[in-house]
Amino acid sequence: MPGPDTKTGEFGIIETIFSPLTRNTPGALGLGDDAALLSVRDGHELVLTKDAMVAGVHFFENDPPADIARKLLRTNLSDLAAMGAQPVGYLLATAWTEDCDEAFIKSFAAGLEEDQALFGVGLLGGDTVKTSGPLTLSLTALGEVPIGQALRRNGAKVGDQLYVSGTIGDGALGLQARQGKLPFLNEQDRQFLERRYRLPDPKITLGAVLRDHASACLDISDGLLADAGHICKQSGVGMTIHQACIPLSDAAQKVVETYPDQWTAILSGGDDYELCFTIPPASVPAFEEINHKLGLHVTSIGMITEGESPVLLDSDGQRIEHNCAGWTHF
Amino acid sequence: MPGPDTKTGEFGIIETIFSPLTRNTPGALGLGDDAALLSVRDGHELVLTKDAMVAGVHFFENDPPADIARKLLRTNLSDLAAMGAQPVGYLLATAWTEDCDEAFIKSFAAGLEEDQALFGVGLLGGDTVKTSGPLTLSLTALGEVPIGQALRRNGAKVGDQLYVSGTIGDGALGLQARQGKLPFLNEQDRQFLERRYRLPDPKITLGAVLRDHASACLDISDGLLADAGHICKQSGVGMTIHQACIPLSDAAQKVVETYPDQWTAILSGGDDYELCFTIPPASVPAFEEINHKLGLHVTSIGMITEGESPVLLDSDGQRIEHNCAGWTHF
Repeated sequence: MPGPDTKTGEFGIIETIFSPLTRNTPGALGLGDDAALLSVRDGHELVLTKDAMVAGVHFFENDPPADIARKLLRTNLSDLAAMGAQPVGYLLATAWTEDCDEAFIKSFAAGLEEDQALFGVGLLGGDTVKTSGPLTLSLTALGEVPIGQALRRNGAKVGDQLYVSGTIGDGALGLQARQGKLPFLNEQDRQFLERRYRLPDPKITLGAVLRDHASACLDISDGLLADAGHICKQSGVGMTIHQACIPLSDAAQKVVETYPDQWTAILSGGDDYELCFTIPPASVPAFEEINHKLGLHVTSIGMITEGESPVLLDSDGQRIEHNCAGWTHF
Repeated sequence: MPGPDTKTGEFGIIETIFSPLTRNTPGALGLGDDAALLSVRDGHELVLTKDAMVAGVHFFENDPPADIARKLLRTNLSDLAAMGAQPVGYLLATAWTEDCDEAFIKSFAAGLEEDQALFGVGLLGGDTVKTSGPLTLSLTALGEVPIGQALRRNGAKVGDQLYVSGTIGDGALGLQARQGKLPFLNEQDRQFLERRYRLPDPKITLGAVLRDHASACLDISDGLLADAGHICKQSGVGMTIHQACIPLSDAAQKVVETYPDQWTAILSGGDDYELCFTIPPASVPAFEEINHKLGLHVTSIGMITEGESPVLLDSDGQRIEHNCAGWTHF
């Protein structure tokens, strides 16, 4: 059992590798105390989320450690974005395997450091342990939102426009590409899709903009239809989604042109981490103006209706049957 | 892959087993949103801690699931107590094994529910995933403390009295008892020590009292000497500890009378979750008066000195050599 002075034991890893990640979060107390301190700005409330990831389930064991760390942070930041929150910090718990040597852990921390700068967050605290099982990670992200202005899933009303950000389905196709299931892809498309799976892009700025416009919002982690279904359930509404309006990347477009049954992955796969949100009719003009000005990369894909779940329509307005189960991580 | 409507899949477990744990934390939004909301009381700041536990390392795989859950919550609450914070809520991430059936998870949640009532906290959010490895858990606990009044490890000054709460070493001896290494124990003592290992008792009230009196504080999770050493390091001081003053339970007393070398476990084992703190000389009378009135079960075991690490003294004032490495979890 290593003593507290070793540089490779628990205390050494915390002191030499993780403490430097707290330089912009004085409340972390340099990871030298029992807990961290955090003040919340006047007029704001805290937004909290916590996601877990297991090697072989949520990422590949041989993914670059820096990207594993960044995906862990970014999936949590995506939850904050979905609530319209500004990220402030995070706590990290890591259960390392025997294979996670110092180089691995340093690379993992370097990935965090890179994203800390990108997203303006800092490490606040956490825990580091060992496991005989797969690498298991969890992260708690904290953000701030003006009191009462957090975006919720339950505010959609009949007549609201339904939007998504970015392009849909790249994550699910990227996972398949990574598994070697899309051998026909050219190298560039394969790399694009795999990267979209490996490294989500949390829509923090869009989330902040939406606080002034959206009636409901969430991030798409379980698949578009499943997550759109969550808005329906929480808001007590239905919705129509026009399949032809769903924004696809060039790579995804090529995939469905050759294999139309890949629409299932696009509609029901997970790991998009785009935002899905609703805009009341009265707010659409102002929102579209901001969209035009800021280039938010959002697309209207349908409309909130009476009902209780998403209805998918083809270009003739005919209903497409689907199983909106989506990807459940359990 | 189970769909979102199943009662045993990810959504089912969250909806039927964990959502009820949010009834006193409206900011959890019933676990139906991307993240939770939390307002911090005026004049207070947030205290945050996050511990991870792995089956076979931090608890026994066949421990009662309710006690596993309670230990997870209580070790985190102990960190809040060490900072003088009042607990308000927690987020939970669970990586279940195949063996964790619905009965196991329900019992786990029942343990949380019991302790929520005891400690006045509620579930705010989290994540639930599956793992092929050992059961892996992490919990993020949140508390509040009046701004600037959090107890730290770095405030001890030469001349301060050194105290501990409760009795020391029961956790380490309880672990040994659980491993069958103390076969001479009578049944009552064995059960007492095992329970002390399995179910720590976070000293929330004592922590709150100490805000007005202590110059430094932490909870003993890595062993008395190692954790006392953390106060030395953070405060830039040394200390003397009188071994004869260290409070022992009757069961632990019997163990060391028969096997004096078990003092090593008592001094350097982990899992006490008692508080170790320092009181400046000017505050000792007032603190002892409160101690007398409230029955805080605290014991003075030594004194802060010049130096850089704890010095252990026998009843003749002679120095006892020790390796203060303590228990490192990594």
